Amino acid sequence: MTKRILLAAVAALALPLPALAQTHDAAALRDAALKDDLAWDITEGLTTEVGQRLAATEAEARARAWAVKKLTALGFRNVHIETFKMPLWERGIETAEVLGASSQKLAIAALGNSGSTGPKPIEAEVVFFPTFADLQAAPADAVKGKIVYVGNTMTPTQDGSQYGYFGAARRAGPNIAATKGAAAILIRSIGTDHHRNPHTGVTSWTQGVKPIGAAALSLPDADQLERLLKRGPVKLRVQITAGMKGEAESGNVIADVPGSDPSAGIILVGGHLDSWDLGTGAIDDASGVAITTAAAKRIMDAGQPKRTIRVVWFGAEEVGGFGGTAYAKAHANERHVLAQESDFGADRVWKFEVNLPEGAKPIADRLATVLSPLGISRGRSTAHGGTDVGPIINTGVGVIDLSQSGLRYFDYHHTPDDTLDKIDPEQLRQNVAAWTAMLAVTANAPEDIGPIPKGEGE
Amino acid sequence: MTKRILLAAVAALALPLPALAQTHDAAALRDAALKDDLAWDITEGLTTEVGQRLAATEAEARARAWAVKKLTALGFRNVHIETFKMPLWERGIETAEVLGASSQKLAIAALGNSGSTGPKPIEAEVVFFPTFADLQAAPADAVKGKIVYVGNTMTPTQDGSQYGYFGAARRAGPNIAATKGAAAILIRSIGTDHHRNPHTGVTSWTQGVKPIGAAALSLPDADQLERLLKRGPVKLRVQITAGMKGEAESGNVIADVPGSDPSAGIILVGGHLDSWDLGTGAIDDASGVAITTAAAKRIMDAGQPKRTIRVVWFGAEEVGGFGGTAYAKAHANERHVLAQESDFGADRVWKFEVNLPEGAKPIADRLATVLSPLGISRGRSTAHGGTDVGPIINTGVGVIDLSQSGLRYFDYHHTPDDTLDKIDPEQLRQNVAAWTAMLAVTANAPEDIGPIPKGEGE
Repeated sequence: MTKRILLAAVAALALPLPALAQTHDAAALRDAALKDDLAWDITEGLTTEVGQRLAATEAEARARAWAVKKLTALGFRNVHIETFKMPLWERGIETAEVLGASSQKLAIAALGNSGSTGPKPIEAEVVFFPTFADLQAAPADAVKGKIVYVGNTMTPTQDGSQYGYFGAARRAGPNIAATKGAAAILIRSIGTDHHRNPHTGVTSWTQGVKPIGAAALSLPDADQLERLLKRGPVKLRVQITAGMKGEAESGNVIADVPGSDPSAGIILVGGHLDSWDLGTGAIDDASGVAITTAAAKRIMDAGQPKRTIRVVWFGAEEVGGFGGTAYAKAHANERHVLAQESDFGADRVWKFEVNLPEGAKPIADRLATVLSPLGISRGRSTAHGGTDVGPIINTGVGVIDLSQSGLRYFDYHHTPDDTLDKIDPEQLRQNVAAWTAMLAVTANAPEDIGPIPKGEGE
Repeated sequence: MTKRILLAAVAALALPLPALAQTHDAAALRDAALKDDLAWDITEGLTTEVGQRLAATEAEARARAWAVKKLTALGFRNVHIETFKMPLWERGIETAEVLGASSQKLAIAALGNSGSTGPKPIEAEVVFFPTFADLQAAPADAVKGKIVYVGNTMTPTQDGSQYGYFGAARRAGPNIAATKGAAAILIRSIGTDHHRNPHTGVTSWTQGVKPIGAAALSLPDADQLERLLKRGPVKLRVQITAGMKGEAESGNVIADVPGSDPSAGIILVGGHLDSWDLGTGAIDDASGVAITTAAAKRIMDAGQPKRTIRVVWFGAEEVGGFGGTAYAKAHANERHVLAQESDFGADRVWKFEVNLPEGAKPIADRLATVLSPLGISRGRSTAHGGTDVGPIINTGVGVIDLSQSGLRYFDYHHTPDDTLDKIDPEQLRQNVAAWTAMLAVTANAPEDIGPIPKGEGE
């Protein structure tokens, strides 16, 4: 105890007085946020009253209206929708069936941007690639006319880093298979659970490549297919009628907590309003908009901050980050000093990392002080933001990552199982406390938070 | 330690010598069975090569052929199929959708024996009954023309007893709703998980009642509907096109380990070969036929037992226990002395109970001795068997229940999630060891195992 008190005293002495006062305010706001009910209220309301809200659909438009009503009722200023046009992708029929002596259905879900197998089911033999690299290395004549299956298996990690690594099979596998003449592609879901709910997610096609039918098998179905493949050749009947349905409207919902010093710049926080069409998007990403909104509301209610805090509920993140791109374009003339998003569920924040300009580095030390009691340590890397704030960060804006535990995130991610019951109210509150503390420190920081020169920052 | 050795010595002294030798044999066979791979092999093979095997379908017929081949290869005698006719029920379209401002789809699965809502979806308001008793008590005019929803919530229990209690909503709820003029009925799944996979299961109609559409909502969807009902009236569009499709063929697969003393009677063990159509029936009940077959094979390989051990892979259990009824009728003239089934998954056996005639009660003491090292204690109730052995038990046949832990059984039961990955190979082996020990003791017991007079037994 003695040592801790001494260290605290030393830390306090090192802070300029206004910054010290802010840290104390931030601590009080942080502790009050551990009793937060607003984030739950938003998450419950959005997922219950709107349900799924696939980008550019009528459901996503309903979600925007819901957001405007909620943000206005909460007292935010300048609440409005900024629409944009984008291509609409829709799911259709999606069936897969083993033919022959072991005739049986397999559970699949089309990947976002999947093409169609045509008006009738296709029948073809499966060619099995245990890893994404095997598909990359395969000669075209081993793939042509076949149904590609990629086994590629991820495991749970706290930092979620295997999603990036193994997710390549989903993001890029279909394009490679199409290039080599595959009839269709099935992948093992990019997920970590053991349920018959396949994980969808976006895939991309390079210019000139005609999209083929591309779907994920649930993890038990992927196991089943691999057991059958061990016994001999497998022929499947597959139908996927997904595809692009022309241009449609999506939009971002924006709400401000105006700051007392407009020249000090905007601190942007948010998450995405759209979800995949399979679940109700509770962890992806109702909880993200809820956490950041609840935190901003707490700062607003504690008295006007120095900097404007802007809350953005981004549209159309899942299918290609359209909302983040549209926001950055529409608001290029405003001075943003920090931009961060919550888009990794609602489990505990365990780590924070920053990317701050030289003069603003003391902010990170104060964050460490105020976040530590929540069980949050400082990570060793540089913050990188996410899909929605990426475009604005790329203009030279600082970022703080509050990293959530990903250990069970990929059990539910992009599946029908992304529903409210997966949210732990206590961990959700810890998130609100972390974001409240972060905003209390940054919105009132006496330091100027300047732009980040390209290739710099910590 | 001293006390334990003393007790063991006292127990040993209390046994007649042939019985003591058998207990030692049983212990050796039990311990060898802890390295069993056959039960896994059968479970993996049946669920992979056949997949789902709904009663009276082509898939169940394939499963019978698979069983004959496997049981013959294992060296069982008298391997054959006994067919019977029964009504075929099939699933069809099953959709449910919230109408109005919170428009969204809900995940449902028709209950076995469900009727149809007709060629077009129906639209009606929901009437909510939190419990089965509330539905029972409701006046008909509160139900007429509405879509009944019964909330009725079970929790996990080691002995699975809440299934019987809360399962009434599924077994009898639809009949009550139909009688009161409901347009359709949805129930909260009789299950304990948090996944978007509804639990099917059989429902029954009394003579003269016209079946209505009856389905289970997944547990997250039941929560969702209840949250919407808290906000106000809910109107649903529901389509269920399930129904009876005439008469079809099912059958039991029978295999014997012939005993040296035919007059000592038959010990019947088994499980059911059919499954629901949603999963591959790994825990319900590939593991049951696998466990009992592996145990019988171990006794066979250890030398001819005194009593014949008969393994039955029953057909058409799920949809109404047709296989058990057909078996009891076809084999009424044979002397059965014990009959038991494994139909509660593949988790650890933790308890055993018996129903034995007076002269055979020492068998239970020897079972206690040999099962105890597996972590199995003697329960306080009378064994009752299950659906498949029920009809033969009711003719006055003794029974031993080896009760498995049900703590996670109802997470998967009757859902698409009943797949191989839910089987823990170590717990499966413990089951084989328990059944092997039980058969070693009973098949060679020197006592005569007589009939159980009605209303008697322990």
